[in-house]
Amino acid sequence: MRQMHLGLFLLGTGSHVAGWRMPGAVTSFQDIAAIRAMAAQAERACFDLIFMGDNLYADPDAHPSYTLRLEPLTMLAALAMTTTHIGLGATVSTTYSDPWSVARAFASLDHISGGRAAWNAVTTSSALAGANFGRVHPNHAERYAVAGEFLDVVMGLWDGWADGALVADRATGQYLDPAKLRVLNHNGPHFQVKGPLNIGRTPQGRPVILQAGGSEPGLDLAARSADVVFSVVQDLGEARAQYAALKSRLARHGRRPEDVSVLPGVMPVVGRTEREALDKLAVLQGFINPQNARMLLAERLGVNLDAHEMDAPLNAVPLKEGSHGFTQSLLNKARRDNLTLRDVYNLLGAARGHWVLCGSAEQVADTLQAWFEGGAADGFNVMPSHFPDGFEDFIELVVPILQARGLFRTRYAGPMLRDQLGLARPPSPF
Amino acid sequence: MRQMHLGLFLLGTGSHVAGWRMPGAVTSFQDIAAIRAMAAQAERACFDLIFMGDNLYADPDAHPSYTLRLEPLTMLAALAMTTTHIGLGATVSTTYSDPWSVARAFASLDHISGGRAAWNAVTTSSALAGANFGRVHPNHAERYAVAGEFLDVVMGLWDGWADGALVADRATGQYLDPAKLRVLNHNGPHFQVKGPLNIGRTPQGRPVILQAGGSEPGLDLAARSADVVFSVVQDLGEARAQYAALKSRLARHGRRPEDVSVLPGVMPVVGRTEREALDKLAVLQGFINPQNARMLLAERLGVNLDAHEMDAPLNAVPLKEGSHGFTQSLLNKARRDNLTLRDVYNLLGAARGHWVLCGSAEQVADTLQAWFEGGAADGFNVMPSHFPDGFEDFIELVVPILQARGLFRTRYAGPMLRDQLGLARPPSPF
Repeated sequence: MRQMHLGLFLLGTGSHVAGWRMPGAVTSFQDIAAIRAMAAQAERACFDLIFMGDNLYADPDAHPSYTLRLEPLTMLAALAMTTTHIGLGATVSTTYSDPWSVARAFASLDHISGGRAAWNAVTTSSALAGANFGRVHPNHAERYAVAGEFLDVVMGLWDGWADGALVADRATGQYLDPAKLRVLNHNGPHFQVKGPLNIGRTPQGRPVILQAGGSEPGLDLAARSADVVFSVVQDLGEARAQYAALKSRLARHGRRPEDVSVLPGVMPVVGRTEREALDKLAVLQGFINPQNARMLLAERLGVNLDAHEMDAPLNAVPLKEGSHGFTQSLLNKARRDNLTLRDVYNLLGAARGHWVLCGSAEQVADTLQAWFEGGAADGFNVMPSHFPDGFEDFIELVVPILQARGLFRTRYAGPMLRDQLGLARPPSPF
Repeated sequence: MRQMHLGLFLLGTGSHVAGWRMPGAVTSFQDIAAIRAMAAQAERACFDLIFMGDNLYADPDAHPSYTLRLEPLTMLAALAMTTTHIGLGATVSTTYSDPWSVARAFASLDHISGGRAAWNAVTTSSALAGANFGRVHPNHAERYAVAGEFLDVVMGLWDGWADGALVADRATGQYLDPAKLRVLNHNGPHFQVKGPLNIGRTPQGRPVILQAGGSEPGLDLAARSADVVFSVVQDLGEARAQYAALKSRLARHGRRPEDVSVLPGVMPVVGRTEREALDKLAVLQGFINPQNARMLLAERLGVNLDAHEMDAPLNAVPLKEGSHGFTQSLLNKARRDNLTLRDVYNLLGAARGHWVLCGSAEQVADTLQAWFEGGAADGFNVMPSHFPDGFEDFIELVVPILQARGLFRTRYAGPMLRDQLGLARPPSPF
């Protein structure tokens, strides 16, 4: 029976902009003990992976509770030692990194974790990043052209050493087998990388590739190279359309629909009853600071909102079309439902543009099942409002229902992330 | 009483080129379980820090047992979770990295480890690195000009957030204190970096800075910014000269001699008797593969040796002056002692140009004490030939003697690396 894949999204104190104000909630995403506890929660529930989002600037006005954080690769490497089975995904940009270093770091994470590494390859949407790297932020098309070549180089570097290269024969003194090494000599328009890496083929052959781009070039890149795709959607219809858009692209890259798992992001707010869940959401929403939410909205829309009443419809604000998946999905919803600016910033504050699913445990499980069986999802990227309670509710109340229905595993399928995802290890390259 | 500082150098299977051939020796530096055991050995002996060397290419002919390794930052982040007190130093290049990412990663390591992070800032000596980054390797002067500015930017970024920036007041909803933030806006010849970091001021205020450059610009940079300097020397005279060269430069940067610890690298080969130690060294040297050692020597000297007899004196080979600390120290010794090429490659194979100290535990302790008290060292960068035994001999036989003489600690001075090094936490910047 086909089963769901569940990922835990980590960034800041939780996905609700003010979730940290809940009683007992974690207030710092620089606290490795608290983050270690989040990973332990997810592993106890047999989640496929934890996945840390990222961006490359600090924007304390629009994103206060996302501002201060650990760096993804060091954080996931630390968590590799405190967990045993769960996958470890880190976001690293193809626009502001170099492929040799990225290939090397994820190979290292895969070795350290015994085959649990995943790279969330992003092109970095915000132009604010450029100023920290002394560069003008490249436009969307250029970022995706670079990303495609970047991924090719990384894959080529991962395939530079075959299995069995490390011989270490004490009797003969032979340490390496030179026949197990292939020099890449990549020479492309954006990158010239000789190789090989100074780290051998990894437990998974290649670390798992995650992607999230919802634009046309983003979908193409994902169809070519991703193992898991995170989608940003507001409702079932949009989720189905995105799901179909990705899956239909796979054949042209010689891939099958089951080769890529599509996981919509969802912030679950769960109660023992629907009433209890709605009350929790009301408390969370009541914590939103209107000034902060307004700045967050302005930043996401890329426009100044000072001249606009918060009770005016979003449709009255002149907008340019963005390339940001979050914003696009929210924009679609706002236009369709004629939402006011206040409505939109409340949605944005709740889960930064992701789908909010509020209800009793049965209702939440029913809806996830309907999406999973209705051509909208292969699982979900779970984005708790806050920790530990916002996540514990999901684990304690919803996961057992999914498991009882046979929709989610009760124990790990093997030691590696590829085992949980049902992905074969790529054959040794030569 | 002044006490020694001891660091454990990690790179490859050990510092002897063929140490992995010893019975029971670790044969893979990609094996986190084995590396974790090395860190545990060092922490059991109250070492100040472990420190991972690095370079940015694979050279399997000259450096087989150094070729395949974990990436330093991910490796040290993992070890942060398996250790409690020992400092964690990682080598990262100022030539092939960007300062925003480096500042961020080491800040993260400092948070994760509770104040035990150290950055070994190197400029990368080998031109082989350039080919993995699509760049022509910059010359020595240019690398050091870049490194100086790079360090300024990293320090500025570390000082971008003051203590107490994270408020997280549940009642008012204030998450950050904007008065605790300073935007860097660095605009220099090599780097333009706006800042701030998306990670707050670290437990140590600033991670500790390690450096190893022995050239004039290297000494200047170290005098300006390093907390610990690793030196590459062959004998007491050279060690004294290097020690004085560094310490005498400190005043012009407003620093005191005790602000910087100088730790010569040493590969100890220890026995219960001198005979036993000499026998161990003979076994190790017998494992050297002459073909490999010859390539290592050619690579280090930067010349082709095919036309030269191995029993010819090194003085007969035309050499250009290099900037490589390792080679320079060996060259000095080879010229002074009129060594043959075979002599030199045997030295190079033993500890890659570092000082080899072979003797009974008492003899080794006596020599270390003489250097420590004789104006040549503030401690040592211990480079075991292989693991675990090559290191265990030092820990079990030599460290207790140093401790009995009051020359080395018997327990950690505090939770942070600065505590072990006797360095004050830099005051909060504003």
